[in-house]
Amino acid sequence: MDRLHLEDLAPGQRYGSPTRITVTAADVTGFAAQYDPQPFHLDEEAGRRSVFGGLAASGWHTAAMTMRMLVESDLWPAGGIVGAGMDELRWPRPVHPGDELHIETEILEVRPSRSRPEQGLVKARTTTFNGRDEPVQVLVANLIVPRRPEGAQQREERPSANSSRQAP
Amino acid sequence: MDRLHLEDLAPGQRYGSPTRITVTAADVTGFAAQYDPQPFHLDEEAGRRSVFGGLAASGWHTAAMTMRMLVESDLWPAGGIVGAGMDELRWPRPVHPGDELHIETEILEVRPSRSRPEQGLVKARTTTFNGRDEPVQVLVANLIVPRRPEGAQQREERPSANSSRQAP
Repeated sequence: MDRLHLEDLAPGQRYGSPTRITVTAADVTGFAAQYDPQPFHLDEEAGRRSVFGGLAASGWHTAAMTMRMLVESDLWPAGGIVGAGMDELRWPRPVHPGDELHIETEILEVRPSRSRPEQGLVKARTTTFNGRDEPVQVLVANLIVPRRPEGAQQREERPSANSSRQAP
Repeated sequence: MDRLHLEDLAPGQRYGSPTRITVTAADVTGFAAQYDPQPFHLDEEAGRRSVFGGLAASGWHTAAMTMRMLVESDLWPAGGIVGAGMDELRWPRPVHPGDELHIETEILEVRPSRSRPEQGLVKARTTTFNGRDEPVQVLVANLIVPRRPEGAQQREERPSANSSRQAP
């Protein structure tokens, strides 16, 4: 499969992911027990009494599940998905057991690196939605993407059943 | 134990955590297999050939481990550690197996909410360090912290062997 180089990316492009994750109570409490052991992430009753209104996934769990969907998306840069840093990360709504998550990524900016001519930075917004298409996470990340080596062929579009790449 | 309200927090305060986490190769590959299955997070040899120079923890794994240390820190707001959003999240250095992580949090801003008089926002920078005291993650988060209910007593300083709170 062809992988994406900086030259393949342009502002306005949108990438989906075929992966959807249905969140279970065991997922929520399992992640929380290891990484975010606060009552509203561990116990339904404590969740109901909290600002979340019910057992709620740790935001870091939502971020981790988003990464899983991103790794399996059509946004597949040569060199992998390597973040130089985030400009934004927020969780506008809680994620509850039973929610089915999916993502959409929009390319916001593409710029060659001044100091590293072999690569560039791509700013992309990945929004994670629940089953009612409400955003539960908004992530704006700066990804390091290699430029196409000189003399290499242009990337050919590959037909794919999973492709959800859309023209801007 | 007393929990912190908005009135207890002030810019310049620093909070440590007694928790230190030594990262193992099994931790790194286990998290990656579930949430970030890219070769440089799964395989030592692939890591060596990557920009990370060796098997490297997913940045989201570092973020999750940081949250664990934060939940167990002396920064213990009433209502829990609830993030309204991040202003910054970056990973200046990779985390490798064998690294022992610890955190330090500095309060940057404290402001009452205009729309929700019972709470406020606290901007805090949590830096995660490896065993050589090099930063491996910088997180600037906006936390929602309740104000002290009217008529309630001032929080008394509690002596604690674990306390690493420092005067500014």
